[in-house]
Amino acid sequence: MKNYLLTPGPTPVPPESLSAMARPIIHHRTPEFQAILKEVEEGLKYVFQTKESVLIISSSGTGAMEGAVASLLSPGDRAVVVRAGKFGERWGELCAAYGIEFTAIDVEWGKTVNPQKIKEILEKDDKIKAVYVTLCETSTGVTADIQAIAKITKDTQAVLVVDAISALGAVPLKTDEWGIDVVVSCSQKGLMIPPGLAFVSLSKKALGLVEKSTLPKYYFNFKAYKKSIDKNDTPYTPAVNLVIGLNEALKIIKKDGLENVIARHKKHAQAVRGAMEALGMELFAPDAFSDAVTSVKVPEGIDGAKLVKTMRDAHGVGIAGGQAQLKGKIFRIATMGYISASDLKICIQTLETVLAELGYKFENGVGVKAFQQASS
Amino acid sequence: MKNYLLTPGPTPVPPESLSAMARPIIHHRTPEFQAILKEVEEGLKYVFQTKESVLIISSSGTGAMEGAVASLLSPGDRAVVVRAGKFGERWGELCAAYGIEFTAIDVEWGKTVNPQKIKEILEKDDKIKAVYVTLCETSTGVTADIQAIAKITKDTQAVLVVDAISALGAVPLKTDEWGIDVVVSCSQKGLMIPPGLAFVSLSKKALGLVEKSTLPKYYFNFKAYKKSIDKNDTPYTPAVNLVIGLNEALKIIKKDGLENVIARHKKHAQAVRGAMEALGMELFAPDAFSDAVTSVKVPEGIDGAKLVKTMRDAHGVGIAGGQAQLKGKIFRIATMGYISASDLKICIQTLETVLAELGYKFENGVGVKAFQQASS
Repeated sequence: MKNYLLTPGPTPVPPESLSAMARPIIHHRTPEFQAILKEVEEGLKYVFQTKESVLIISSSGTGAMEGAVASLLSPGDRAVVVRAGKFGERWGELCAAYGIEFTAIDVEWGKTVNPQKIKEILEKDDKIKAVYVTLCETSTGVTADIQAIAKITKDTQAVLVVDAISALGAVPLKTDEWGIDVVVSCSQKGLMIPPGLAFVSLSKKALGLVEKSTLPKYYFNFKAYKKSIDKNDTPYTPAVNLVIGLNEALKIIKKDGLENVIARHKKHAQAVRGAMEALGMELFAPDAFSDAVTSVKVPEGIDGAKLVKTMRDAHGVGIAGGQAQLKGKIFRIATMGYISASDLKICIQTLETVLAELGYKFENGVGVKAFQQASS
Repeated sequence: MKNYLLTPGPTPVPPESLSAMARPIIHHRTPEFQAILKEVEEGLKYVFQTKESVLIISSSGTGAMEGAVASLLSPGDRAVVVRAGKFGERWGELCAAYGIEFTAIDVEWGKTVNPQKIKEILEKDDKIKAVYVTLCETSTGVTADIQAIAKITKDTQAVLVVDAISALGAVPLKTDEWGIDVVVSCSQKGLMIPPGLAFVSLSKKALGLVEKSTLPKYYFNFKAYKKSIDKNDTPYTPAVNLVIGLNEALKIIKKDGLENVIARHKKHAQAVRGAMEALGMELFAPDAFSDAVTSVKVPEGIDGAKLVKTMRDAHGVGIAGGQAQLKGKIFRIATMGYISASDLKICIQTLETVLAELGYKFENGVGVKAFQQASS
């Protein structure tokens, strides 16, 4: 069966990258690999929209998130953590793991944070050294207003740390222009590569914290990665073939042009949302949807887990169900990375087929038609 | 130019694994991937020679080494660290990063540790919870007598932690039979896969420490990996295509038979050492050589850096120079993983060519002949 992957990570990998990753392995301490690493860092700077260094770490995104706690802070520092879903909660767990006291802003799942709340907390506490936010909360499909938050953190002692794992290269994120200090991302989302690589950009303000940080760390010590990347090197053996695959993916983004890539994501996500509404379904996050992933409420009387499973097992179309408290209550369709309008059309067509099988009532073909109109 | 990689990591990747890694990506939370993960864990248990769980972590080997400090120990615990080269030093750096006081046993580079020294230290200090040793010190080509060390640690409160990054699947290492508590390894050495995956086996004694450990950690928290692997899962998105490639590599090892694979490594390494001696060169570690990598002294008057560079750039044959204090003084030829006798013959032939160019005097062909005789 031919498979179509429309999950919010891993996302499909372009054949250019797949075949590059299948080339015979090369050694990492060679001019050949260093030239690739340099090109990759340049490409990442382009996508991160920053002139500062972008660190390349061999781990899942969570590893780089851990580094953004352990490498920035010191005992006694405090933090603000926005928790609007599973990945916001992870920031809190990471702070707790390192004994960092934090003020949590708990946001109802499906809603977005009000930046003013961050301002109020920062004004009252000058021990706060970092604000941890999620750009696209993959678990809910909600996006945060990073530009507004950056305006608030800019003139304080605190750095703004953005988990852009799920949305870098898919939604607007202007690191330098907006004044974001730390952007964390990884390979298997908008950057279209298999999981295994994580990335971190650091502003000068963030580098200042890195220099002073005394929390225990080793593998995720940003200081070592910064020193190495300045020499087109990595402190530990990197995931060589993933870096080589990433280089090809970055070339595709560069060729298409980042603005166009982001516009395509917007168009596709809007078309998916239109299709869901045409099918009479309710969006889970209508107020602050992300163009990386659309979350949709499972209609009353329909078994959400069965819907996702049947699409995957009987039709080869992979979408995601809900996580944690949203298990069985929502499903999620990604529009991130190497997912084409045709892939999405197949997805919606299959969704219609399976919804009909499960007894959901709607006018056959209306979802596909709405998608078609909005995406062409 | 066709390239031959004979460096002690990354080592060449078999075509079966390369092409498997180029298959379309699949999602990690699916029965399809979980079946692969299960097969991979079974394969790892076979190579680790253990009945206990083997954790699969997406990082370089250093990450898993960090976990073997942060996930085993608690503040106030002490350790013994054997430092016989660059990677032994890393154990010390890791302990220091977490504030763990340790007694270092410093061994001259090129020599191996005397297990009795470990015994003496353990007898005097019951706060020592872990002994950190390197099976094959890649920087020197020296192997440690792990079986003898395990006999010493077995009846103490301390766990034995072995960095087997460079030698698992290449030299004998009987985890359960010898009583080794923690074995750390990774993908790009004897397991023949590109870098990006690390592995950890844990004895029941080690699991006891993991349960009680209070050092700060998150991504390298073994407790989370243990809980996940028991359900054929990983706590964070794993490096999916590396796991799939690894499955193919493990199938090759299983088909060949671990005993035969290890016997082949021994034969190849002996043949390489014989060739070096026939060429009138001196082995750097004649007393305790590892069959994973052979280190050879650069002959007087020969530019070691130029030797390595010329072999790589003019002939496509990648060997390694010396690291740190051994830079320019030794070169290293790996016999690990997917390196065949023919690859090694090409390597020795090229070495002869370049040595002659650099003015070293020897009887032309004598190295190749010695290798040929010993390896056939």
